[in-house]
Amino acid sequence: MKKALADILVLDLTRVLAGPYCTMMLADYGAEVIKIEVPGKGDDTRAFGPLKNGASMYYANVNRGKKGVTLNLKEDKGKKIFLDMVKRADVVVENYRPGVMDKLGLGYEELKKNNDRIIYAAVSGFGCYGPKSLRPGYDIIAQATGGLMSITGEPGRHGIRVGNAMGDVLGGMNLTIGILIALHARTITGKGQRVDVSLVDSVVSSLETGTQRYFASGKQPELMGNRYAAAYPYDSFKASDGFFVIGCGNDKLFSLFCNNVLNRPELLEDSRFATNIKRCEYHAELKPIIEEWSVNYSIDEAVDLLNEAGVPAAPINDLQRVTEDDHIANVREMFVPLHHPIIGDMKVNGNPVKLLDTKADISRPAPALGQDNGEVYKSLLGFDESFLEKLKEDKII
Amino acid sequence: MKKALADILVLDLTRVLAGPYCTMMLADYGAEVIKIEVPGKGDDTRAFGPLKNGASMYYANVNRGKKGVTLNLKEDKGKKIFLDMVKRADVVVENYRPGVMDKLGLGYEELKKNNDRIIYAAVSGFGCYGPKSLRPGYDIIAQATGGLMSITGEPGRHGIRVGNAMGDVLGGMNLTIGILIALHARTITGKGQRVDVSLVDSVVSSLETGTQRYFASGKQPELMGNRYAAAYPYDSFKASDGFFVIGCGNDKLFSLFCNNVLNRPELLEDSRFATNIKRCEYHAELKPIIEEWSVNYSIDEAVDLLNEAGVPAAPINDLQRVTEDDHIANVREMFVPLHHPIIGDMKVNGNPVKLLDTKADISRPAPALGQDNGEVYKSLLGFDESFLEKLKEDKII
Repeated sequence: MKKALADILVLDLTRVLAGPYCTMMLADYGAEVIKIEVPGKGDDTRAFGPLKNGASMYYANVNRGKKGVTLNLKEDKGKKIFLDMVKRADVVVENYRPGVMDKLGLGYEELKKNNDRIIYAAVSGFGCYGPKSLRPGYDIIAQATGGLMSITGEPGRHGIRVGNAMGDVLGGMNLTIGILIALHARTITGKGQRVDVSLVDSVVSSLETGTQRYFASGKQPELMGNRYAAAYPYDSFKASDGFFVIGCGNDKLFSLFCNNVLNRPELLEDSRFATNIKRCEYHAELKPIIEEWSVNYSIDEAVDLLNEAGVPAAPINDLQRVTEDDHIANVREMFVPLHHPIIGDMKVNGNPVKLLDTKADISRPAPALGQDNGEVYKSLLGFDESFLEKLKEDKII
Repeated sequence: MKKALADILVLDLTRVLAGPYCTMMLADYGAEVIKIEVPGKGDDTRAFGPLKNGASMYYANVNRGKKGVTLNLKEDKGKKIFLDMVKRADVVVENYRPGVMDKLGLGYEELKKNNDRIIYAAVSGFGCYGPKSLRPGYDIIAQATGGLMSITGEPGRHGIRVGNAMGDVLGGMNLTIGILIALHARTITGKGQRVDVSLVDSVVSSLETGTQRYFASGKQPELMGNRYAAAYPYDSFKASDGFFVIGCGNDKLFSLFCNNVLNRPELLEDSRFATNIKRCEYHAELKPIIEEWSVNYSIDEAVDLLNEAGVPAAPINDLQRVTEDDHIANVREMFVPLHHPIIGDMKVNGNPVKLLDTKADISRPAPALGQDNGEVYKSLLGFDESFLEKLKEDKII
């Protein structure tokens, strides 16, 4: 079977997380991604933990499937080589602060002169235009600025950061969407274009209906921990060995719950719990009734009893449970064994997008710094060995 | 300027959030999205708050730009009409529980017989294959099962749910990526295929390096509120009127902070704070030193002083601040004015993906139930008025 993006050549200038997550998605689906790194140093995350045998598992996870070359974009010879590569490429991806590529003389306008079919895709904290575009954009800045922290947290306490770099991940996903839309647009217009994604915009878009509730009421949402304003019981509950969640979204599910799990059909007659709206109002009285039942069971027992009765429920999985879950880890291939020449056998995160014919292919480890200089520069630009040696001596590659 | 996805026809069977978020992304970029709803009832979210003049702002926000038709897929005549539409379409999108479309006789294999170029895209809680595939997949179930709740929360307390429906949003974004990759693959293979996305996989993929840290150490991550394990000060801090965040990712930024904001260069000589690794270790001692300074300023004053000195900082914006921020709301167009025939003037969420030539177009309000029956069935299938009347009488549309 051919690969889905087999005919796409991506020049990848990205570092750390948001940009590399995007080019990882493209590489998994068969795009030829050439990661271009600073000679002698490379992506900062090559030095980030966790390390094994001195190599970064951070870098290895998010850069699998990419080819690695080095190139010094501050030197004229390096710029010339980059522009020659741009002539042969479909997509350039970068996540510098806006303006950095222009200062190098490698901004979109310059690239377009060399190839008007090039798609120039950038992700930054605040985007490439707007009054705050030059502000630096770490993940925590985006989670705070975009409103996500203000709606996440426990009642009566203060807003907290989502525990992963969610702003970076959302930004990388939106950049992937933008590149793929621009590739399609090119089949209609014949031209490339610029794609701009900001971490802040990406966080704002994820707020979904929260902003509509605010527009309608003018009221800030309360922090409510695991509870949900629009349905109850839709919350976490105590078991004998920890907490689990129930997602009872409607009256039918609540009646299954009362009749077949709690064995308390009289609750359905209680005016405080008769409708979903009432249950949302009297949630503080319903929760202890449910926990009277649930504390008698372990998490797994309670979740199984609920699922058997058709009531949505789940354990609050920690990373051990997530990474060892047969459905997630093995059948859905969300942790994929991969051999890395330095790290050895490792598991990288799987691809969450499943095309069932032209499947994701996660089989090539992340590159060592400059590993593919020979192959890429020879095949793409026709350089010979002695010229490559000269470039290396001059610290261009 | 032509629209990016102008030549793509999408049949949209999705309801609630994850699926509609995906088809919203496609519609914003010019795909013709025909939302197919149950006659007389429609998408459940037509009844979800917030309501204005009896119409749902929830529905109006996430379904802008789509055409609306009704069709009864339980009746043979309805199935026949659907299959005739499939012959002319590029993509079918659904978010039923796995197996529902097969039971209707409208599973992928049947659709493929009618059009082997069709892309069949589905999003569900656990995906269409695997031992847990039939479990129902509300957002809270995905956040709990996928491990996100276990890493979000305050030290010494328990894991909490991210305050938006993040599992649904991530699932909708991955489905968009999958459809766009499959459209590209079709230009290579000539064939459509099946795209499968699960909310749980989507949450797992968002954990990024967290899983690598777990594989390396075998230790569960601690809950750490707003703090970050790998850099400090990268946390929230107290101002006179609330909290704000600082994202000091490296030694250079910390020295700017001490010299030009705190005016305490001696901290750079303090062995507890000399390197980022040391600062991570002694975070509990550094935080009160920073708050000694920050409590003297309002949030906005502190953030401005930090940004002027080049130190990344941001307010923890509530929804009022997010929706009124000039950069976010106006320049980046993350809240777009739109007139809805029943709701009146409203603002819908903007599109976080910015193509700078073939721009997103958010100008057509969400459809009334069956609003486009006449136009769509006439232009696509050549039905005349009297036949449409008959279908309506028979409750097929």
